[in-house]
Amino acid sequence: MVWYDSIIGGTMGTTNLFAQRMERLTPSIIGELVKSSKDTLSLAEGVPAPELFPVEEIAASTQHVLAAHGASLLQYGNYMGYESLRQEICGIVKKRYNMDCHIDQVIMTNGSTQGMDLCGRAFINEGDVVLTESPTYIDAMGIFSGYGASIEGIPCDNEGMDLTALQEALLTKRVKAIYVIPDFQNPTGRYWSVERRKAFMDLVSQYDVMVWEDAPYGEIIFTDDYRPSLASLDTKEQVIFLGSFSKTFSPGLRVGYMIASPAVVDTLSLVKEGIDLHSAALNQAIISDYMAHYSYEEHVQTMCKVYKNRLDALAQALVSLLPEFTFVKPEGGFFLWATVPSESNGNSMDFMPYAKEAGVVFVPGAPFYPTGEGPFAVRLNFTGLTEEKLAEAVQRLQKAYHLYVAR
Amino acid sequence: MVWYDSIIGGTMGTTNLFAQRMERLTPSIIGELVKSSKDTLSLAEGVPAPELFPVEEIAASTQHVLAAHGASLLQYGNYMGYESLRQEICGIVKKRYNMDCHIDQVIMTNGSTQGMDLCGRAFINEGDVVLTESPTYIDAMGIFSGYGASIEGIPCDNEGMDLTALQEALLTKRVKAIYVIPDFQNPTGRYWSVERRKAFMDLVSQYDVMVWEDAPYGEIIFTDDYRPSLASLDTKEQVIFLGSFSKTFSPGLRVGYMIASPAVVDTLSLVKEGIDLHSAALNQAIISDYMAHYSYEEHVQTMCKVYKNRLDALAQALVSLLPEFTFVKPEGGFFLWATVPSESNGNSMDFMPYAKEAGVVFVPGAPFYPTGEGPFAVRLNFTGLTEEKLAEAVQRLQKAYHLYVAR
Repeated sequence: MVWYDSIIGGTMGTTNLFAQRMERLTPSIIGELVKSSKDTLSLAEGVPAPELFPVEEIAASTQHVLAAHGASLLQYGNYMGYESLRQEICGIVKKRYNMDCHIDQVIMTNGSTQGMDLCGRAFINEGDVVLTESPTYIDAMGIFSGYGASIEGIPCDNEGMDLTALQEALLTKRVKAIYVIPDFQNPTGRYWSVERRKAFMDLVSQYDVMVWEDAPYGEIIFTDDYRPSLASLDTKEQVIFLGSFSKTFSPGLRVGYMIASPAVVDTLSLVKEGIDLHSAALNQAIISDYMAHYSYEEHVQTMCKVYKNRLDALAQALVSLLPEFTFVKPEGGFFLWATVPSESNGNSMDFMPYAKEAGVVFVPGAPFYPTGEGPFAVRLNFTGLTEEKLAEAVQRLQKAYHLYVAR
Repeated sequence: MVWYDSIIGGTMGTTNLFAQRMERLTPSIIGELVKSSKDTLSLAEGVPAPELFPVEEIAASTQHVLAAHGASLLQYGNYMGYESLRQEICGIVKKRYNMDCHIDQVIMTNGSTQGMDLCGRAFINEGDVVLTESPTYIDAMGIFSGYGASIEGIPCDNEGMDLTALQEALLTKRVKAIYVIPDFQNPTGRYWSVERRKAFMDLVSQYDVMVWEDAPYGEIIFTDDYRPSLASLDTKEQVIFLGSFSKTFSPGLRVGYMIASPAVVDTLSLVKEGIDLHSAALNQAIISDYMAHYSYEEHVQTMCKVYKNRLDALAQALVSLLPEFTFVKPEGGFFLWATVPSESNGNSMDFMPYAKEAGVVFVPGAPFYPTGEGPFAVRLNFTGLTEEKLAEAVQRLQKAYHLYVAR
């Protein structure tokens, strides 16, 4: 009867029964990196500033929706998601991305991570190629390769993906999908130009290939330079748009969404229903009620102002303390990507222990590359720390870097 | 820019890009069946009585936890789940199932449906055999076959699975796992005897095979005859136990859990993190706070009393109005399974339109059988309707049955 004890002393392992796909499973490198001591300043995590969560308003909205619709919110719900929030989302993407979508095209997910997983499940056969920007979001590579995809990176410039290299890949490989983050990319902060977006969609429309447009950072924008989403330029039902309230509102509520063509939505919604029936309606209703009673737009603008000031502080500290690090200052998002010219030998993975020793962590560049190899680069988050802490973090980084160079 | 319109008029379909596994995807038959008109009485759905949800207490608990831990609950959370609820779960399964488990063995999921999906993903290779009770839960078959499993049903008697047939299958087939619902099974309401549980675990311990014990109904019990879980009898790290708060507390919150051996938990937690990072902490914190401030046990007991009275009403109406239907009255759970002796020609799928016409729906028996064929049987839910409505539903069923027999 003492189950736990018997396991510890068990004679048989069940791990030999795992599916082959488990061999591709790797622990998140970011998860490992952020396991740092309490005194460490973390530029590694990609988390919103918790002090900006509208906790009291969320508490009030929860009261509203439970009082008005308690029994139905606590009951089994619609596998597509909570209707009024899906309607709000149509308005948000119209305003932000010039996207015309119908509520029936919106499926709610547990964060956009689940949206990526649904893309993988619905489309990837073993051996399919998924093209990504190089570098790209680490966890996306993990999800797609978990379904047996071969991930191949396409080089980029400041305006977006290199379309010559993209076309070459489309012509020569069994490409199922192209995964891109056109708005303030993770990790580079890149914001694709309008021209590149149009040329990209013109090119891909000539191929039978899906486009998975991941846009969790699109609303975290520090200018009024709103650019259309790839989905808004789609003429061939190719794009699945992945949105999220994790960066703008609360990641802990786990509310994301997918927007796709009716035919794709039909299948995606069955997949979603099959894996967890539906996402919790209460969490979606809270956001919807918040939008009805408070200004979501104002909230996001406030957030953006704070983040812009933090970015300014980080950038300024880097310029004055670490001129060896070069970067393009992003116009939105969560990350600043800094590289060190190749003549300085070494790489950011080797640099990492020096930084940790000095009390600061970041995510080194190499794991963001599908090949696992890249230049000396660091991804620095600027949303999670105050301006003072960011300045302090760069001081520590400077100290560590000088020790590293002198090693 | 008019994306929705352009899709409607699109020239290319993207559906030809779907992965092969999508060919196995089928819409939920129950979902189709419950699409009935407003005047229909539904014995089809397996939902808790919404009037028993502790809405006000849940609202109060939400205030408590947001006031005390708002910022951390709204931030990214632990992929294993909310610690204090996982600790409570250890107490619940000890009391109910005599299971000794450590908090590190508990992973929170989005309902136990996601738990099943995680089992499939972690263990099933294309062509593996998953044995189930015959009949068994329809959606479980869908999930496992979605991963390429071949589902084979093992006959059962009132005490549980037929162990001679089970052994025969274990000796002759490439069995990866046995999926069972020993407590008030969906659809039959069967409650495995203690002896059968022990003999089952003795038998399976001789084989390299997983046991997936799905126990969403275990706490919905109308007697004090608590029987040990299979997991509590496990000596070889074989059992994954799937629990849920969907039947006892609220399905809409999407809070379920898995309990497994440390080695299995290590892998399952990585899979969980990969597919949606973590389940929403707020939802788990609400349940945990409810347990701290109110009596969860009393709440479940109240629920069970109401459900027992409803079952009594349903059973009594069947005995007096439809003696052609035979059944074993369950001691818990959500369902009564009634069969009509084989000499009466016909089957419950053909009977269904007559019932719908009379204003009552149920789930016909055949889809619960892995072969898709079974006796004239109906699954009747007794938790979703009041005693009066249940009596009325049986009257309608009687009328429909007489028309069906006279067809």
